[in-house]
Formats: sequence, C-alpha cells, structure tokens
Amino acid sequence: MEQPHRVVILGGGFGGLSAARELKSAPVKVTLIDRRNYHLFQPLLYQVATGSLSPANIASPLRNILKRQRNTSVLLAEAVGIDVKNRRVILSDGAVDYDTLVVATGSSHQYFGHDSWEKFAPGLKTIEDATAMRRRVLLAFEAAEREGDKERLRAWMTFVIVGGGPTGAELAGALAEIANDTLKHDFRTIDPAEARIILVEAGDRILPSYPAKLSEAARKMLAGLGVTVRTGVPVTDIREGVVTIRVGDQDETISTRTILWAAGVLASPLGKMLCDEAEAKVDRSGRVIVEPDLSIPGHPEIFVIGDLANFTHQTGKPLPGVAQPAIQEGHYVGKTIKRRLRGGKLKAFHYFDKGNLATIGRGAAVADLNWLQLSGFPAWLIWIFVHLFYILQFQNRVLVFMQWAWLYITFDRSARLITGKNPLPLDL
Amino acid sequence: MEQPHRVVILGGGFGGLSAARELKSAPVKVTLIDRRNYHLFQPLLYQVATGSLSPANIASPLRNILKRQRNTSVLLAEAVGIDVKNRRVILSDGAVDYDTLVVATGSSHQYFGHDSWEKFAPGLKTIEDATAMRRRVLLAFEAAEREGDKERLRAWMTFVIVGGGPTGAELAGALAEIANDTLKHDFRTIDPAEARIILVEAGDRILPSYPAKLSEAARKMLAGLGVTVRTGVPVTDIREGVVTIRVGDQDETISTRTILWAAGVLASPLGKMLCDEAEAKVDRSGRVIVEPDLSIPGHPEIFVIGDLANFTHQTGKPLPGVAQPAIQEGHYVGKTIKRRLRGGKLKAFHYFDKGNLATIGRGAAVADLNWLQLSGFPAWLIWIFVHLFYILQFQNRVLVFMQWAWLYITFDRSARLITGKNPLPLDL
Repeated sequence: MEQPHRVVILGGGFGGLSAARELKSAPVKVTLIDRRNYHLFQPLLYQVATGSLSPANIASPLRNILKRQRNTSVLLAEAVGIDVKNRRVILSDGAVDYDTLVVATGSSHQYFGHDSWEKFAPGLKTIEDATAMRRRVLLAFEAAEREGDKERLRAWMTFVIVGGGPTGAELAGALAEIANDTLKHDFRTIDPAEARIILVEAGDRILPSYPAKLSEAARKMLAGLGVTVRTGVPVTDIREGVVTIRVGDQDETISTRTILWAAGVLASPLGKMLCDEAEAKVDRSGRVIVEPDLSIPGHPEIFVIGDLANFTHQTGKPLPGVAQPAIQEGHYVGKTIKRRLRGGKLKAFHYFDKGNLATIGRGAAVADLNWLQLSGFPAWLIWIFVHLFYILQFQNRVLVFMQWAWLYITFDRSARLITGKNPLPLDL
Repeated sequence: MEQPHRVVILGGGFGGLSAARELKSAPVKVTLIDRRNYHLFQPLLYQVATGSLSPANIASPLRNILKRQRNTSVLLAEAVGIDVKNRRVILSDGAVDYDTLVVATGSSHQYFGHDSWEKFAPGLKTIEDATAMRRRVLLAFEAAEREGDKERLRAWMTFVIVGGGPTGAELAGALAEIANDTLKHDFRTIDPAEARIILVEAGDRILPSYPAKLSEAARKMLAGLGVTVRTGVPVTDIREGVVTIRVGDQDETISTRTILWAAGVLASPLGKMLCDEAEAKVDRSGRVIVEPDLSIPGHPEIFVIGDLANFTHQTGKPLPGVAQPAIQEGHYVGKTIKRRLRGGKLKAFHYFDKGNLATIGRGAAVADLNWLQLSGFPAWLIWIFVHLFYILQFQNRVLVFMQWAWLYITFDRSARLITGKNPLPLDL
C-alpha cells in the first residue's frame, strides 16, 4: 500500500488550523504540531487581560477541534528547526518527516532592540501574558489603596499603554471602564475613577491601519472614557516606574507603575531558520517573503502563512497580521495541496478583505467594512456579532455571550483574579 | 467622636466571609484581610483541576462581594503574626490594630512529615494547585500519545490518587470520566479509556466520615467507572515515578507518572503562633482548641473559626473541616460581637449538621442527610442543587450551571488547557 502524502502543519493558530480543516477529507496524513494544546482566539486576549473573560473561554483544545478528523493527528511539540533538504521538521524532542510543510508559527511582540523594556512593559500574545497583565493591573489598584505617599500613589494610579493599534486602543478602553465602573465601589481610600490612563503612539494617529476618520472617532471615544491619547510621541526609554517619551525635540517622563506593551510585532524565529536553509528572504519584522501561491522560492512543498508570511503580490503592501488573512491563506494552501494531488494547480492566492473592527468600550467601536465606515454603537454590534461568530466552539460562544451580556448590564468583570505566585508583601 | 469598635478578620474563606457579612449593619469597623483578592469556593476546586470549570467560575473578588458593605474594608495582605498583648495583627508589610479578632485562615495539605513527597504528589488547596494538577493530568496523556516504550507508556497511563476522602473520591471519578468519555476521540496512538486510575486509602473504607453503607455505594460507583479502589493500604513512600503502599505486611510499588495528593490536612500556622502568644492549645493537626463560644481561653476578644478551629463541645469530636461549620461559626461570631456591643452574651455555639454530600461522577453521588441516606442519581441532583445554591455570585451560578449542563450532554470539558511555563520538550 502506498503511504499517503504527509502534510505537516506547524502552528495551531488561525492559519494552521484552517489549513488542517481544509484537508479534512483529503487523501493525506496531516500532523498538526503546536507548543500549546489549544487554539487561542487572539482577538479577545485583551479581554482576559482585563478580567472580562476566562482563559478557557477563548482557548479551544486542538485535539477537541480535530477529533473527528481521522486523517489528522495533533502533536504537542516544539519545532526548533527545518531540514529542508531531507524534508524533516526538527522538534525539541524528535523529528517528523513531511512531503508538504505548512509553516504558520505566527509572531510574538518585540521591543525594537530594547529587550530590557520587556520586564517593565509586558506584551500580550499568550494566555500567560494575559493573566500576568491582569495581575499587574489589579495589584496596582490594591497597592494604591494602601499607599500613603501622594507621589507614589499617583504612580500606582497611572497606567501607560504603549502602541495605538487595535490592541492598545482596546486595552486602554477596557482599562478606563474598569477604573470608572467595574471597581467603582470596591475601594475605601482611593477612587479608581481618578486613575490616569495614557495611550502613547509614535505615529500621528491611533489605529493607523484604519481610515483617518475612524482613527479620529476612536480617539474621541477614548477621550470620552477619560483616556489621555497622545500621538506623535515615540517612547525612547522604559525603566522601572518611568516611561520616557519624545515630545517634539524634548524628552518627557511619566511616572507609572503599570506599563503595558502593545507596540511591535516580531515574526517567529522559524522564518529566519527557513531562510538560512532555503533561498527565501525575510523582511525586517522577520516575515518570510512568499510567492504568489504562498510557497517559498524554489520549494513548492513549503508554504508560509499567517503572521509569519509577507505576501505583497496583491496590493504591493504586506497583508496585515490579523486573523482574516491567516484563515484565508490556510484554506488556500489546503486547497492547493488537494489540487496538486490530483495533478492540477491553483491560481495565485487572492485575499478578500472583509474589513477591520476594533472595539473601544461598551457601545463603542470602529468598523471599516471598505464599502462602509461606521463608529459607535452600530460598529460595536457588528464587532460583537463577528467575534461571536468566529469563536470556534459552541459552548465558548454561549459563555462569552453570557459574560458580555452580564458585563453590559452590571459593569462587573468577574474574572478579576490575581493569580500566580504570592504577590505579598506588596511593593509599596 | 468615639472610634467605632474595630473588628479584624483574617481570611476570606467561608468562615471569615460569613463573619464579615453578619456584621453588615453593625456599628463596627470591619477589616477583612486575605492574601488573595478572592473568595474561593473550595468544594468545586477539583472541577478546575479536572478541566470542567475555569478558576474565575469558583472565585469571587472579595471587594466585589463586600462593596456595598460600607463599614467593611478589604486588605490584600498577609498576616504573619498576632501581638495578643497589644491587640495588633502583624502583616508582612505593616500592622493593623483590633478590638476583636476573628482568625479564619484555614488549612493546607500536609504530608505527615514527608515533605519530599509534595514535589511528586501535589495537593489541591489553591487555584494554582488546581491548574498545576490539570496540567499534570493532561500532559500525562500527551506524553503517553508519543511514548514508544511499553513500560513507560503504562506509567504515563497510570494515575494514583492518595486519600479516599471526598476530594480523593471526586478526583478519581472525574479522572475516570475524562479518560472514558472526554478524551475518547482525541488521540491516535493511545486509547485514553485504557488509563488505570487507582484510589488508595489507608483506612478500611473510602469516605470514612460517611455511613458505611454510603462508603460502599461510592466504592461501587467508582468501580463502575473503572477506578481501582484499594483500601487498608497506607502509602509508605513516594518518589519520582513510584508510589509504595503497604499491603498486609509487604510493600508493593506502583509505577506511575501522575500522583495526586488528597490525604492530610494541616491547619494554618497562625494557630500555632496564637498559642505561643496566648494560653490556647493546638491539636496534632495544628487546630486551635476553642471555648464553647469559639474564643480562645483568657481572650474573649479572639475568635478562631473554620478549619483552624477544633470545636469539640457538642459531640466530643471536632467538627469536620468543611464549609458548613465554617459558615455557621462565622455567623455565630458576628452575632456574638453585635450582642456584646449591646452588653449581652450569646449562649454557646451549636452546630446544625445539614448533612454531607460527595459526587462521584455523572448521575452518581452520595448524600448523608442524617435523617436520610441516598446514593446515585437522587443524591447527585441534591449535590448539584446545593452547590449551585451556595456559589456566591449570580453570574457564576449561571456559568457553572451552563458548563455542567454542557458537560452532561456532550461529555466535553472545555477548560482543559495546559498553561504555565513551556512544558516542552516532554519528559518522555
């Protein structure tokens, strides 16, 4: 009996999972490899970081998603290299051979060469990042409640979010609602509503990938929540308790005990490894420059998709690192593999941009549907509908909806636990 | 203006919280101190450990519970000592003066002098314990899926639970359901149903605090789920990969990679400290022997309640370390404080035993209601009803109910995430 064609997919995010599901009934043997045992719905990660949802609400076990797909097995393992010549993925504890490889290992945050910043300004890419961020935010209010010194109190009550993209805007909005509403009656010596929430962005407007009109709408909605939005102010230094920004040609410092990083993104190191092994090139964010069919030059058996891919053949600009391109690329690659097995060929990948959505707070969002731009309540309804629709498991869809409804009615965020190692004594 | 009477409560568990809530409208100033920012619904902790519920579903922020109680403030702090003479609680970062003190700091697990066992056989008292246990169980199946060696595979597929009390029985039952049903189609090389789940108990029956008839019913239900129940077999040693039990006068070893500890309980060290400072005595589990009004000898201003108290005045035996006594003791102490302020005195504490419940699996539980003993489906319905009733927040009640309904219909446990530091490479 002939051995079936072996497809190995690295990464169980939006891209990898779409590719795997597209191959459901194909005469191939699929192995999906991920370091985690779950698919993470990244667009809602900020809601875990701000106590609205529990980690399990946005994480679905990969085995569970794929359990009925008998041609597919899931491997909890970490790919550390690719032996292109021998068509083999090197794991930290073994190796797996492939006939076709799909690399979809995504990205993590980067600090533009300032790795020392990470300690003081954690980013948001994993469940652990989210619970650590939640912990920091909640501990800041706890410390403020017990702080006697006025200046130190002000630093505990100051929250700086670096980066005005969707994640930064969403974090800033949620933080403002926590301070204004969720914690309203919780404390006795501080008034959480007096917290200062500052969103700093190097560029000249927030949500730079949206039309200028929507950036302005988002800025107004954030201002309405009490967020100070500062644009055109690049961060030049971060150390314990202090963010330095450049305003015009002068440095300005902000004293704060809580700094959240929502700025740079760096592609997975597997991209670079692939380039050392094959003839591919990476851009300065570490993304692999792919061919029109998402393969890499000289290696039609290797596809790179999602955040790790730099696909410019459609508009001249790389596709954004969000869920939609990854999902469509995954399906395209799955289809290409099936077509090839039948001896055919698919035409070049074409991205259909359904639009972009970012939420600011309750009843407040921006929606760029290309043919229509919306802000405020209608955009927020679309945001809710679309996110519920894309959440994978029915149960999570219901649980998320219920918690959102509860939050909307009561302003309460029930998942505001301080977990992890003992934080006491508080560092006052 | 006279300063109001200051009540300091140490611990936000069932006991401390009940005392605080009883004092809601009293002319006192209440300070509730806890190391954690949430009240934990401990009876359902095993459901977090087995992936049925998320941590936030059974943890309610203390500030949120008490936010409308204006005479009460919550302090996130750790009590490290009590200065009985000066009526002052020493914190790891400060001190708080009291007029009346309620000590309700509970218990943790103990290894009867074998502290080295903890590393290999984690216990279950905190949210972190529960997510660590969940991680171990899930990783064992992941490792088994990739294990080539037959003997090592068998060790990965063997789960030993030490201790046949309610926690041990509940863990064993849930683990069996995970293996038999939840993971049914998840793996490709192993059959999770072949996992061996062994519950070992030193005494001659499981659930020793229940009538013998119910112990036997529980044993049968566990056996029906495929759990091997071994009684009269004390654990004599635990090391990496091996549990040693004594069978008759011989030692027997069980090779296993997953050992869960549900045996000994040790009272909080504050009890011992209290005894060094005052004239109180502790029993060999570290519980403080209290007076009929739950105060300690010579110090009517200090009450000890919940798992930390040894109250024998009613039956000659200490009350069990479960939620009901703690709740009733908390209310009693709150009432006593109010009565004293009005110059009166309450008669001795009297515990009203409403009964005991333990669940084994779907449709399987035991209920000892004193006037009625039930097992099987009716007991299970009572168990569900009682637990939903006692969960504090309405939202959590709904979320827990929904997840139970979902589990009942689909056998799916959605919160089965492996979180925490990177577990790779797997230790095969």
